[in-house]
Amino acid sequence: MRKFFGFSVLTAVTASVTIALTKTASAAVDPETAFIFNTLSFLMHGFLVMWMAAGFCMLEAGLVRTKNTTMQCAKNITLYSVAGLLYWLVGYNLMYMDVSGFMGSFAIWSGSDDVITADGFTGDGSGYAASSDWFFQMVFVAATASIVSGTVAERVKVFPFLIFTVLLTGIIYPIQGSWTWGGGWLSEMGFSDFAGSTIVHSVGGWAALAGAIIIGARTGKFGSDGSVHPMPGSNLPLATLGTFILWLGWFGFNGGSQLAMGSAADVRDIATIYVNTNMAAAAGVVAAVILNQIIYKKLDLTMALNGALGGLVSITAEPLAPSIGTAVLVGGIGGILIVVAVPLLDKLKIDDVVGAIPVHLICGIWGTIAVVLSNGDASFTTQIIGIVAIGAFVLITSAVVWGVLKLTIGLRASEEEEFLGLDRAECGLEAYPEFGGGSGRV
Amino acid sequence: MRKFFGFSVLTAVTASVTIALTKTASAAVDPETAFIFNTLSFLMHGFLVMWMAAGFCMLEAGLVRTKNTTMQCAKNITLYSVAGLLYWLVGYNLMYMDVSGFMGSFAIWSGSDDVITADGFTGDGSGYAASSDWFFQMVFVAATASIVSGTVAERVKVFPFLIFTVLLTGIIYPIQGSWTWGGGWLSEMGFSDFAGSTIVHSVGGWAALAGAIIIGARTGKFGSDGSVHPMPGSNLPLATLGTFILWLGWFGFNGGSQLAMGSAADVRDIATIYVNTNMAAAAGVVAAVILNQIIYKKLDLTMALNGALGGLVSITAEPLAPSIGTAVLVGGIGGILIVVAVPLLDKLKIDDVVGAIPVHLICGIWGTIAVVLSNGDASFTTQIIGIVAIGAFVLITSAVVWGVLKLTIGLRASEEEEFLGLDRAECGLEAYPEFGGGSGRV
Amino acid sequence: MRKFFGFSVLTAVTASVTIALTKTASAAVDPETAFIFNTLSFLMHGFLVMWMAAGFCMLEAGLVRTKNTTMQCAKNITLYSVAGLLYWLVGYNLMYMDVSGFMGSFAIWSGSDDVITADGFTGDGSGYAASSDWFFQMVFVAATASIVSGTVAERVKVFPFLIFTVLLTGIIYPIQGSWTWGGGWLSEMGFSDFAGSTIVHSVGGWAALAGAIIIGARTGKFGSDGSVHPMPGSNLPLATLGTFILWLGWFGFNGGSQLAMGSAADVRDIATIYVNTNMAAAAGVVAAVILNQIIYKKLDLTMALNGALGGLVSITAEPLAPSIGTAVLVGGIGGILIVVAVPLLDKLKIDDVVGAIPVHLICGIWGTIAVVLSNGDASFTTQIIGIVAIGAFVLITSAVVWGVLKLTIGLRASEEEEFLGLDRAECGLEAYPEFGGGSGRV
Repeated sequence: MRKFFGFSVLTAVTASVTIALTKTASAAVDPETAFIFNTLSFLMHGFLVMWMAAGFCMLEAGLVRTKNTTMQCAKNITLYSVAGLLYWLVGYNLMYMDVSGFMGSFAIWSGSDDVITADGFTGDGSGYAASSDWFFQMVFVAATASIVSGTVAERVKVFPFLIFTVLLTGIIYPIQGSWTWGGGWLSEMGFSDFAGSTIVHSVGGWAALAGAIIIGARTGKFGSDGSVHPMPGSNLPLATLGTFILWLGWFGFNGGSQLAMGSAADVRDIATIYVNTNMAAAAGVVAAVILNQIIYKKLDLTMALNGALGGLVSITAEPLAPSIGTAVLVGGIGGILIVVAVPLLDKLKIDDVVGAIPVHLICGIWGTIAVVLSNGDASFTTQIIGIVAIGAFVLITSAVVWGVLKLTIGLRASEEEEFLGLDRAECGLEAYPEFGGGSGRV
Repeated sequence: MRKFFGFSVLTAVTASVTIALTKTASAAVDPETAFIFNTLSFLMHGFLVMWMAAGFCMLEAGLVRTKNTTMQCAKNITLYSVAGLLYWLVGYNLMYMDVSGFMGSFAIWSGSDDVITADGFTGDGSGYAASSDWFFQMVFVAATASIVSGTVAERVKVFPFLIFTVLLTGIIYPIQGSWTWGGGWLSEMGFSDFAGSTIVHSVGGWAALAGAIIIGARTGKFGSDGSVHPMPGSNLPLATLGTFILWLGWFGFNGGSQLAMGSAADVRDIATIYVNTNMAAAAGVVAAVILNQIIYKKLDLTMALNGALGGLVSITAEPLAPSIGTAVLVGGIGGILIVVAVPLLDKLKIDDVVGAIPVHLICGIWGTIAVVLSNGDASFTTQIIGIVAIGAFVLITSAVVWGVLKLTIGLRASEEEEFLGLDRAECGLEAYPEFGGGSGRV
Repeated sequence: MRKFFGFSVLTAVTASVTIALTKTASAAVDPETAFIFNTLSFLMHGFLVMWMAAGFCMLEAGLVRTKNTTMQCAKNITLYSVAGLLYWLVGYNLMYMDVSGFMGSFAIWSGSDDVITADGFTGDGSGYAASSDWFFQMVFVAATASIVSGTVAERVKVFPFLIFTVLLTGIIYPIQGSWTWGGGWLSEMGFSDFAGSTIVHSVGGWAALAGAIIIGARTGKFGSDGSVHPMPGSNLPLATLGTFILWLGWFGFNGGSQLAMGSAADVRDIATIYVNTNMAAAAGVVAAVILNQIIYKKLDLTMALNGALGGLVSITAEPLAPSIGTAVLVGGIGGILIVVAVPLLDKLKIDDVVGAIPVHLICGIWGTIAVVLSNGDASFTTQIIGIVAIGAFVLITSAVVWGVLKLTIGLRASEEEEFLGLDRAECGLEAYPEFGGGSGRV
């Protein structure tokens, strides 16, 4: 009788409970208990988002060629580390402390004493431990950096890439983040981006786009006659694993962005977010699979994977307000955008190794616009202003950083190194030294 | 002194606390706090079960040959998506709403308005958010579908398989589920299946068995002289990863099936379930390893992996009532059944690519019978009635669906496609395009 | 306005809340609610530590050669199973029941009736379910055993290894564990090891070191002329995945070692632990990458991975007291120790296949000493006494067990078996039967 109990009660109490469980009903939970729940939500959802670092790594390691796989792994674990250190040294304060319109405290250490001091977190927020919030915010900035590494894979040199990561996670991401989540000017205008379709995903996408254009395509990817040379991913089960990890992590990404779990209303909202997040991803898969089958008569696994991710990015700006049907619609359109945008990028001769631009940039924009479908407080105009302002800021600052790196220490591996593979050229280790041809194979 | 505190208190208060912490002791937790705990249990344990989708995918991708690996990944992520959509559109209501003996409301949308409406979940159950429960139930139906895909791998065409998934997750699973968990006739008889040895695992197993028989064995698997041609899995570390994922997810599967965490008694039960679940799996591994060593003088990894899964399925029908010793016994017998049943299926010329029938069907039956070892409320006769009724229903309905698909759009890839591999034939992508021979190798 | 709320309040209430949230402030949470939180912490953090078993398995499977990969997977899933069974039968009581200085109750069954009986856990501790604590302790002993399997890979025979695992997890680990965590003589002296830099990690490291010396190096690893023959890992993305899994699991390892979550002070401490744990690992990566680049001009992925693990082990003895800056320092030195120690072991002709001795032994010692940097209650002398006493005990007892096994049933695969690979010799299964050369390749 596993559900009989639940079912019978459900029928009876629906109407009254729905009214009772408004945000104000949380008085019943004592403040310290609520503090524990809120903090636990940041920690549990935070470790799920941390796990997304492994997801991006596996996805990208599976979608590059064997000869660049070691490098892709090395870049991903290092960028996750760099993101955490920079967000501690600079980013968090820039994003959340003393934000007055444009950005917060640009103090590397001293400006953040009341939250982050040399002795670590000494303060606690009203209702949650400050360090749990910091942990949750930190794994978000790491996600942004992970997006970039996929697009520019297989030809960018690692140390210029890591310098870009330093600036992205320490400066660029936090400044635009302060505009909305830090309480800056976009927040005051009413821009709405619940868990970061724009603030996390399209930011990563814009930075990746700038990189892809400035670094250029992989040698041989685009023929002078307009032909596109496919360079298939070397390990598709690994890419699939990465997608499943990301899907799992997204429950933390969106669910934790409720920022509280200390009341029935909050945890009910988190439950709704889980369901909408899952259904948008499912719809993204099914839409991408069906459309791809119609157009190409093939079940292209990479489209199914990116369809899931496209659905997830699309629902991220508003995973709470939509009905399930709307979530399915939002995610399904995300899946369709993937199938449409991937060949479009090829036509534009933009070489995006893992498809991160369709997933994170295009679906990020779509998701941010789609907020108006379900959230009555959101305005179409304001959503567009937010998308354009953040996009322009990130595209320009990223382009400047990529450009300066190109002109100074150089961005690209030499053609010889690219042919040999970055694993041998920069890592000195092959990913699969015993498997037919190893990483030397083009 | 990490444990000194705990140890000293443990000795002192055992007797009294044991009495105090009965189910009725939960009055001390205020209702809203209990609501949060209950909902959190569904969400946390639900995401662990969702993660099992990745486990099934990795297990199956590792146990098929290279040339069918992409397809196995594509099928698994798509079936997880289809299961969620169908359970939303049809399945949940059929299983839980207005169940009167045989099944619930066979209304695609309108019949479930008071729980699932076009606006999403608006109702809350007594003590938990309705959508958290829905999420938890949904990932269970996906597990059932995942079981089938392993058995019929390497020769079934993908779209007929997905149509079968639609009917399994939308109709077949929910109807039999309504009999027990929905409060139907088996529930009234007292059939006991805590987390689904029968209702989830053997249902998947019966559907897989029907498929394996109707689709037939892979070309070349069984010689006309009774010989069995081994077709070894192409990536055993991936299969091992899948097993570890499933083991982890099973804490959610069994632990979350307590359906509540809002009292000390409930969380204590969940803790007991974690321990019993783990010990049954451990015993399954050790029993399978030892027996296999005795019979074949080899440490067969696939037997160790399926031994773990066999132990887990065996304890699933009753993970709470057994002592640890009984859990070890139940799981150990599960491991032994694996070693015995795998060659038996070969003798019967049933081609089960990943060993899902021994794991989920045979151990599912064993686990459901084993309930009577520890649960005094269970009756042997009723357990058998449940096993037979559900088995007959699922075997027959599945056979009809597989049969109709075979006679209409066809179920099997052509011999040429099978030789080439489904990755090239239906996906147009190789799983490991650079590794010796790629997926074209037989 | 995701953070605006948090930010504004943070600024206002920091000073007062910091004072209010001392350990004594937990009176506000009712005892049963605290019981649920405490138990939930053991369960949630326990499943994260259980997941580390998969991390060790993937790390090791990726770092051995193809021909020994199946065996490495088989050993890891079996040792996890054996550890659980032995800790139930012997270990837990030896470590925690009736500890009087040297060890607890050496009763296989009967001595532990009041906590673990033939009927399972019947008692509950003050504030948490006994079985949740047992689950959490059990996954720790499994981690210790996992460390050993990496070092002695590629030449130890499986059954002698499993016998060693029985004695390590049933006897050696619990006895030394009783000295501190069981309330024995080291605890009385004030030895401080929060989550087990010494008690878990260096214990695994000492047992591995004894094994590596007694078993000897792999054939061909060290030339008689002092040359070192590199034997590169066969699947580096898998090793990367393993490292990410371990990193994720470490939030459970260190966070759960707070042993309570039922007050604001406890959950705030857990949040601090998460941050420090993450930052130490990040610093380990960055330090190892930079130092390796300076010395070798290469981004050696295995150094980045072991740098993460070195940082994690280093912070494990005291993840709560340090400021973030100190955590970064402690972890960064851990990363440096990796880069220094790996070639040192080669010079000593100690063949440590996965680098477990630098990570778990050397960083374990460093982390235990580093406790005095931040924890005012710790004494340098006592820390050294603990390190030496536990080291001597484990090194000697392990050496005796390895030695007796060597003299009786034998420890090493024959040279022929080693050349052929343990997968064929002992498992009868290749890990990647279709990939260029398969596991027969040296």
